Amino acid sequence: MERLVVYAKASDRPGLLTEIIERLSHRGVNIVTTLGYVDDNTAHLLLVLDSPLAGEEIEELLSDIVDARVAPLGPAAAELLAEFIDNRPGLASILEMHLDPPDIHDMILRLDPERRQRIYKVLSPTTLARILAIADEDLVNEIATTLDLNSLVRAISSLGPDEAVDVLQKLPEALRRQVLRLLPRNLVESISRLMEFPPETVGGVMTTSIPVLHEDERVEEALAILKRGDYDIRDTIVVVSHDGKLVGMVTVDTLLRERPDRKLGEIAVKPHVTIGPLADREEAAKLMLRYSINRLPVVDEQGRFLGIVAIEDMAEVLAEEAAEDIALLGGAARLRERYLTARVVDIVRSRVIWLILIYVIQSVTANILKAYEDLISRIAIVAAFIPLIMDTGGNVGSQASSTIIRALALGEISEYSLRDILVVIAKETATATIVGAIMGVLGFTFSMLVAGEIRIAVAVATTLFTVVLFADLVGSFLPIVARRLGFDPATVSAPLVTTIVDISVAAIYMGLAASLILPQT
Amino acid sequence: MERLVVYAKASDRPGLLTEIIERLSHRGVNIVTTLGYVDDNTAHLLLVLDSPLAGEEIEELLSDIVDARVAPLGPAAAELLAEFIDNRPGLASILEMHLDPPDIHDMILRLDPERRQRIYKVLSPTTLARILAIADEDLVNEIATTLDLNSLVRAISSLGPDEAVDVLQKLPEALRRQVLRLLPRNLVESISRLMEFPPETVGGVMTTSIPVLHEDERVEEALAILKRGDYDIRDTIVVVSHDGKLVGMVTVDTLLRERPDRKLGEIAVKPHVTIGPLADREEAAKLMLRYSINRLPVVDEQGRFLGIVAIEDMAEVLAEEAAEDIALLGGAARLRERYLTARVVDIVRSRVIWLILIYVIQSVTANILKAYEDLISRIAIVAAFIPLIMDTGGNVGSQASSTIIRALALGEISEYSLRDILVVIAKETATATIVGAIMGVLGFTFSMLVAGEIRIAVAVATTLFTVVLFADLVGSFLPIVARRLGFDPATVSAPLVTTIVDISVAAIYMGLAASLILPQT
Repeated sequence: MERLVVYAKASDRPGLLTEIIERLSHRGVNIVTTLGYVDDNTAHLLLVLDSPLAGEEIEELLSDIVDARVAPLGPAAAELLAEFIDNRPGLASILEMHLDPPDIHDMILRLDPERRQRIYKVLSPTTLARILAIADEDLVNEIATTLDLNSLVRAISSLGPDEAVDVLQKLPEALRRQVLRLLPRNLVESISRLMEFPPETVGGVMTTSIPVLHEDERVEEALAILKRGDYDIRDTIVVVSHDGKLVGMVTVDTLLRERPDRKLGEIAVKPHVTIGPLADREEAAKLMLRYSINRLPVVDEQGRFLGIVAIEDMAEVLAEEAAEDIALLGGAARLRERYLTARVVDIVRSRVIWLILIYVIQSVTANILKAYEDLISRIAIVAAFIPLIMDTGGNVGSQASSTIIRALALGEISEYSLRDILVVIAKETATATIVGAIMGVLGFTFSMLVAGEIRIAVAVATTLFTVVLFADLVGSFLPIVARRLGFDPATVSAPLVTTIVDISVAAIYMGLAASLILPQT
Repeated sequence: MERLVVYAKASDRPGLLTEIIERLSHRGVNIVTTLGYVDDNTAHLLLVLDSPLAGEEIEELLSDIVDARVAPLGPAAAELLAEFIDNRPGLASILEMHLDPPDIHDMILRLDPERRQRIYKVLSPTTLARILAIADEDLVNEIATTLDLNSLVRAISSLGPDEAVDVLQKLPEALRRQVLRLLPRNLVESISRLMEFPPETVGGVMTTSIPVLHEDERVEEALAILKRGDYDIRDTIVVVSHDGKLVGMVTVDTLLRERPDRKLGEIAVKPHVTIGPLADREEAAKLMLRYSINRLPVVDEQGRFLGIVAIEDMAEVLAEEAAEDIALLGGAARLRERYLTARVVDIVRSRVIWLILIYVIQSVTANILKAYEDLISRIAIVAAFIPLIMDTGGNVGSQASSTIIRALALGEISEYSLRDILVVIAKETATATIVGAIMGVLGFTFSMLVAGEIRIAVAVATTLFTVVLFADLVGSFLPIVARRLGFDPATVSAPLVTTIVDISVAAIYMGLAASLILPQT
């Protein structure tokens, strides 16, 4: 069973919808909801189905009566939904009853600003709140300025403190202050505690939505609080001393097992590991994965409890960090906005600085080649192999760095372990020697075929071997060095390694070719 | 407070340890454990501390009495631990009481095989089990062949079914069968159900360690089962019908709120989303992140309950998938082993095929350049700008693909949405036009400075502009195409884009240079 969205168009006639529903039901399709309007005598129908049939089968099944397009619910359905609602933004208030906020969010992103604004006005505060929680800065501002202040406040108050902070941090200063003034007092208190911490820190991702009880309170009191169900974390309670210091945690199954009058301080389990609020959130993710921790307590320097890092939030952090590493490896700064709403000037800015930097370094290559102008003009075929050698070197370098970045990220090797670094040198030297020999032999054969000149082939093969060794060691060393210096190893992106390799290729290859060929011509 | 490992060496004398402990305590350091031995009159001391001081401060503090090295507990401490235990593998049985299995695992990896084997024999079955659960195939086999069959069986039986499956799948066929014969019957049943599914599928990562009750059973029965605490998932129960079909789920706070005699079928909440056991595990991760689902039920085609995908396991999957993407982007196949234990031949194999493939495609570039031998020999300086242009093009291409791969991965754009693809074309064309203009102007200036020849400068600038546009569109399109064809978009790694760009640079630049320069020389 897959949940599908169907957008069907046909010239309107009585009984059309009934016929569609009958056909689908007949094939075991479960109809979750239907929605429609008639425009210019054309019926526009939207169906949400749980279907044992694939999308194409449904399109096929209905093809003789309607023009139906089908997509699985999720990002792929966003376009269908947007097209359906484009003429009737008011229907969003019905759609929100049958779709999850992320689906509405994706649909909204595919509409014109004007339509979007009409939709914000018909959505319920809770749906708006959920959309605000996942929207990027531009969209948050658009929603915030479209709504009147009261509706905005109503939406934000329906969020938990962590999400409310995320939304508030995306608002312009002045509006943020206005909203804070109107939010409920207890929410503002939690918010202002969380706002102290930047979003990339542990404090920025921790939750305070967990029951916190004193060590003298009893099991029955803890169960009574859990029962109310108004915390995000429902499987664990935190126990603190009277000065707010973390005593330990108790899981719900322990609470169920213990006598109701047992003091919490007696059964709380002191955690092996805690973390400070200013540590990098990736650090928390690593600790939690390494030691299989689902709830990591955050404490200040005096050991006072501040909040909990929950594994469910870390899953999101890991996904974001992975995307960031991919961008870095590609040599692009991270875009703060979603791609669909990012402005071209921001995309250009995220890319051009790195390009110019590399360009400046690359000019060295051009100058080295210029120095060998004489050789090239005499034996032009020498130049034909430069791209091949540079590319091979660049690839070897980026293969080596991606292997090492991965091993560092998974904690398989430590940048502080001398032994690990020696293992890296030994393995990469051995690997590069073998790979270099293979590429050298191939390069020799290939350049003999193209140039038919043994001295050139020797220069090509020797350069390939040397460059593979050099590129491999540079590629594997740079991430370790970057990490020792406290940078993200992924900033040692392929472009940097490639550039270093290119310069070395120009110097080694041209030098070799010159010394092999020039004396004899 | 940070947990630190200290390895201190000094010539042995009475009162040494006491003196160290006093100094540390005096500075507010909390000593978790100490361990030591004397060898050749040298005292080897290992301390685990919770310290408000940084590692360097502790080294400094003790520097006049011992030679102390300090590392934070975790991957960085592994080398210190390995060095300490190297002479006394037997101490591992004491160490295991104070360290977590991942720390022991990392320490083991840094020892000789001989020492490792002595350690396996002194560790408790539960520690061994935890180490087996995180070890790679080679290490699992080493442990399995060192232990006698009974110890191995005892270790594996202390694992939950999901982890036991992971370990069994790493054992050689024959040994696996021997172990299965000796494991407790109920564990074998769960294991054989899980073994049906490949590790990359939802079935391969789901857990069956969650209470499952019938819809006619009552709240009090559910609470009684949760109370026992012998399931991995303790915050939710699953409710099924008499034929095993999923009815819904109930969270623990609901159970606490309801009357004890209420039937579970009446309060179970039917989940919005379920998934099949053969879906890709990454698919499950995406669904769970998108809809903020912590427990995703896995059902077969008849809707029968099979297991739960838990968000805590997805965090691990996301970390692994990120590492895999990084390897792919670098143009290296994924290493199945950990880097430290991987054999060189496997590393070579993971890299060389891709290199040779790219090499073959790159030979086109060499042949294009060869065709312009005549031009190059007349105006050698033409060749000096080739690497610069190729590199710029390659960088632009990899920037574009990393942006698009990221947007696809986060679900910001859909490969099925025509509108999204049009947005990508529009944004990338605009971006590339601006970037191309900037790089073109820079290239014109630079080549005028180096070559002093306006026709070459025009060729360089025009090629740069054209290639930036082309590379950007190729780089942004290939990931979308790859995804439509069902591949991981990260397989469209930088090396492939670079190679395509290089060929086009050779063709465009040499063609342009020839048509601008040759007629007039």
